[in-house]
Amino acid sequence: MSLVMSRSHALVTRLRGATSLVHDRSIARCTPTDRVSKNARLGDLRRWQSTTKSVDERLPRVIAQTTVFENPWLRLKAIRFLDERGAERQWTGLERTTTYPDGHAIGQESKCDAVVVFPFLTQPDAPTRVILIRQFRPPVGKWVVELPAGLIDGEEAPDVAASRELQEETGYVASRVLHMGPPMVNDQGITNGSCRFVLMQVEADAQASAEPTQQLEADEMIQVLVAPLESLVPWLLERQHTHGDAIDARLYSYALGLQGLPPTLA
Amino acid sequence: MSLVMSRSHALVTRLRGATSLVHDRSIARCTPTDRVSKNARLGDLRRWQSTTKSVDERLPRVIAQTTVFENPWLRLKAIRFLDERGAERQWTGLERTTTYPDGHAIGQESKCDAVVVFPFLTQPDAPTRVILIRQFRPPVGKWVVELPAGLIDGEEAPDVAASRELQEETGYVASRVLHMGPPMVNDQGITNGSCRFVLMQVEADAQASAEPTQQLEADEMIQVLVAPLESLVPWLLERQHTHGDAIDARLYSYALGLQGLPPTLA
Repeated sequence: MSLVMSRSHALVTRLRGATSLVHDRSIARCTPTDRVSKNARLGDLRRWQSTTKSVDERLPRVIAQTTVFENPWLRLKAIRFLDERGAERQWTGLERTTTYPDGHAIGQESKCDAVVVFPFLTQPDAPTRVILIRQFRPPVGKWVVELPAGLIDGEEAPDVAASRELQEETGYVASRVLHMGPPMVNDQGITNGSCRFVLMQVEADAQASAEPTQQLEADEMIQVLVAPLESLVPWLLERQHTHGDAIDARLYSYALGLQGLPPTLA
Repeated sequence: MSLVMSRSHALVTRLRGATSLVHDRSIARCTPTDRVSKNARLGDLRRWQSTTKSVDERLPRVIAQTTVFENPWLRLKAIRFLDERGAERQWTGLERTTTYPDGHAIGQESKCDAVVVFPFLTQPDAPTRVILIRQFRPPVGKWVVELPAGLIDGEEAPDVAASRELQEETGYVASRVLHMGPPMVNDQGITNGSCRFVLMQVEADAQASAEPTQQLEADEMIQVLVAPLESLVPWLLERQHTHGDAIDARLYSYALGLQGLPPTLA
């Protein structure tokens, strides 16, 4: 069962006068909208796809969103969309109210919620290390070893947000941006949450103090960890094993990449 | 404003007889539970932390969860937890009902929802490529360039799930697992969603057909893309630029790591 199949919410309504949601995938295949011709309806899947393409290049697309739950930080939405064949379907997705305050997400350029910083801690004549944080995350119910990160404030530039978050969460001051990634989505099956990956250099010798001080709110639960870059993957696995910590996906994926190609391919 | 600060949901209730949620961070700092001594309550943050440690090593921790919204695939929960100082707080988090059907997540070992496959497509005397998918994701409202992925079915082994999902979504058959990552969390500020990163080798010459056929459900919207491994990061950026596709975080992070250290550090 794929992510799509299992969560595909084959709740199908007719385009007009929809009042109830039906749990039946077979119905999905029998409810083309009026955007799809009668001939197309008679074809097989391959024919559907090619026929649909000629009918409406804009498929699939979201056509409406309804809020089913909201608090000051999150909004859960029932999303109505047309699939590749023009059949209407429904999905449930979560978004941050802090990023989409007006609910005009449909059709607009994607915004980016947050920055995630990979801080290379460099020192002359010493191996480069990485500054990580360990944060208690209520949705996971655990401490998570992760990268310093935070929401981009309003019109703030991503590099400014990255420097600020790094300093607030770890006390370290970055000297330069080494790479600014594009917006990337974190868990696209259930949320539109997005972030930019920012690689930064932090020069140990340029810090005001040998023991940088965090600037945490009273309700932040963050510990600073400095890890070896050379053996970051085994370090993370050991951390998970000995402390029961969870591991952030961006951190592990990047660390694994830094190891290079798997031996049998290299 | 950090991810934690902005979303810290400083909704504080007293441990006993809680009937309403209060939006006031200052209250959080004044509502230690009976687990924290009166002396500790008088100290500063540093003193709190050290005092709390001696009082209860198990802090912070989740103490209760209430469902605020549920459908057949997702459950949104109000999570009550004690922070490092023993003050009770609240957070909102999303989980898959398909992974935690009985709501016994508190205190149990973390399960892993899904596998995310990085399929190295190898061919003698040709550069290694990677098999990607392009999937329409309603929560994002866009096509997302991502890795083949899917939920682990019941007691299924992760490598079996990885092989199955790869074949269903792309038609390609893997020959071996090159690396099996640990469970990692995708977007821990809002969900407990987790996955394992699985690197697999797919031998082009071992495929039954030169044009492998997907085994999609009628409601899956997935296209197969084969990308160059050598220039994967610029390929992804170009794809985002020209097609408006979103990019998956695990894919981009790993691809960026494969490029090696940023030039100024290498």
